[in-house]
Amino acid sequence: MAILAAVDALKAQGKRPAYNLKIFFEGEEEAGSPNLAALLAKHRDTLRSDGWVIFDGPTHPSGAPLVSLGVRGDVNVEVTVHGPVRPLHSGHYGNWVPNPAMVLSQLLVSMKDKDGRVTVAGFDDDVVPLTEAERQTIRAVPAADAQLKSELGLGWTEGSGMSLLDAIPEPSLNINGIRSADVGEKARNVIPTSATATLDLRLVKGNDSKRQVAKLIRHIQAQGFHVIDGKPTMEERRRYPKIATVNASPGYNAERTSLDDPLARGVATALKPFSAIVLPSTGGSLPLYIFRERLGAPTVTVSLANHDNNQHAEDENLHLGNLWRAIAVAAAVMR
Amino acid sequence: MAILAAVDALKAQGKRPAYNLKIFFEGEEEAGSPNLAALLAKHRDTLRSDGWVIFDGPTHPSGAPLVSLGVRGDVNVEVTVHGPVRPLHSGHYGNWVPNPAMVLSQLLVSMKDKDGRVTVAGFDDDVVPLTEAERQTIRAVPAADAQLKSELGLGWTEGSGMSLLDAIPEPSLNINGIRSADVGEKARNVIPTSATATLDLRLVKGNDSKRQVAKLIRHIQAQGFHVIDGKPTMEERRRYPKIATVNASPGYNAERTSLDDPLARGVATALKPFSAIVLPSTGGSLPLYIFRERLGAPTVTVSLANHDNNQHAEDENLHLGNLWRAIAVAAAVMR
Repeated sequence: MAILAAVDALKAQGKRPAYNLKIFFEGEEEAGSPNLAALLAKHRDTLRSDGWVIFDGPTHPSGAPLVSLGVRGDVNVEVTVHGPVRPLHSGHYGNWVPNPAMVLSQLLVSMKDKDGRVTVAGFDDDVVPLTEAERQTIRAVPAADAQLKSELGLGWTEGSGMSLLDAIPEPSLNINGIRSADVGEKARNVIPTSATATLDLRLVKGNDSKRQVAKLIRHIQAQGFHVIDGKPTMEERRRYPKIATVNASPGYNAERTSLDDPLARGVATALKPFSAIVLPSTGGSLPLYIFRERLGAPTVTVSLANHDNNQHAEDENLHLGNLWRAIAVAAAVMR
Repeated sequence: MAILAAVDALKAQGKRPAYNLKIFFEGEEEAGSPNLAALLAKHRDTLRSDGWVIFDGPTHPSGAPLVSLGVRGDVNVEVTVHGPVRPLHSGHYGNWVPNPAMVLSQLLVSMKDKDGRVTVAGFDDDVVPLTEAERQTIRAVPAADAQLKSELGLGWTEGSGMSLLDAIPEPSLNINGIRSADVGEKARNVIPTSATATLDLRLVKGNDSKRQVAKLIRHIQAQGFHVIDGKPTMEERRRYPKIATVNASPGYNAERTSLDDPLARGVATALKPFSAIVLPSTGGSLPLYIFRERLGAPTVTVSLANHDNNQHAEDENLHLGNLWRAIAVAAAVMR
């Protein structure tokens, strides 16, 4: 809406964009953009371009727009640990039949140390280090750690006091959710038949989504699990003490545009009046590698939503002030 | 239904019970029997009795009815671990903001060793040991471990190869369910705000439900948690690195009737034609202490449902054969 309102505003003022504009709306990003690559290939000539400015994501906690020259890659992994083939009464079988919620907890705990560092072997091995210029760019960003700890109610953070800005350029492993049977009013005295966790792996430049998943599977195997991708047979259940069903989403890799790229410099200059902050990469993920691969074009991402927007969760929201400013920012980029 | 059908059958055959019968149906057992004590107190004179035979629970895996002279106590504990005060985007905050699903997993893993033995300090301290006669009774029960491992699809069992019959006389700790955000199709790339586990603690003779919960709370505190019973304030969130909300159900203690009790001997003798197996205690829990406390009467529990009945879970079922036999068993007890 902000982009279209910016076009209308320029027209109303009799101003023209500094470039030929092509506007493209992608509505499947949160579903993994399954049709994006085919769409760009099909309309390659129509979408031919010098570069892409992507509007997505939240601002710096100070409220300043971010100009991110990269995004992280992303892949989801669902891990299900199997217990008894039918649910069991916890009194008649507890402390004898292994509980899959406990076995899954043991597996998850093995993936990170007490400080939150990922312990999967080789997790960081293929990371392409930041350039010195990128490091300097990060050092120039105002630290918001204290503000965030206070407003989020955090008594500690992972990484032994590492700044959030230093955590973003690393590959990450997050538990999106975990579920086994029920809790609260729906809980019953049972040993559940299975326990599931959905994991989110963020990838940085150098990581490959398939390779990162393979490292995780090797880690699960090293914890004594027989890893399969479907339901275990009775024979498998009887044979292997621990069985995990592991399924990964298609996933995609990180993308980064050079600080020296003309598009990067141009957008940063245009947004100086908005106190925009330049970052080598945002913590979020977008399949921007597809634009480079299919159209040969660099990408720069400008983020405008309020940072406390509950993104990806209940009560996701946008402050109206951020919407109004988004129009002005979009117009400035176009001019 | 079996009890009433047995009364009808005796009447139809012109036979009389060997005792004056009082029949009592309790419909709130799975909800913790919150009104049972008051009801027994109110109708004390009407319910005055020499002993109670309780029909409840599954048979031995061989199909033989069980005559259980005791039941375990039971108390549920719900543990919620708190993360950030609002849900967060896993890319923008992952590997920096602690994830409550991981913190809960660490806490749960601390409660048992890899062999499934409870590691909560003092968990077994107040257990009243079995008598030599009770031990002999257990040794006389046919072991069903191999059958159960095969039909449940278990590659291992907890307790370093301990028999199920030897696990039942110990206090237990089971994870009934665990939940944080969502998995599967509903999963999103978030750091959840909280993670919850519902635990089931089974108690044996000597354990006290309040004391057992207190031991668990001390264990949680020893893992570095600030334990509260409600929602944390922002001040608490900022002050304490780890916070757990812990709430326990009212709970109740185990009950055991002596092997020498006339009621115990009488029921065991009456059910010999059904190849009934006598056990000092079942693994399940019933608030039978209330009958002793309020009415001064001993209790004996006879179990008749098929052992593979998915008790407490989806598709709970009763084989018709077990229903028909239950009528004959009830009539034999009455005669």
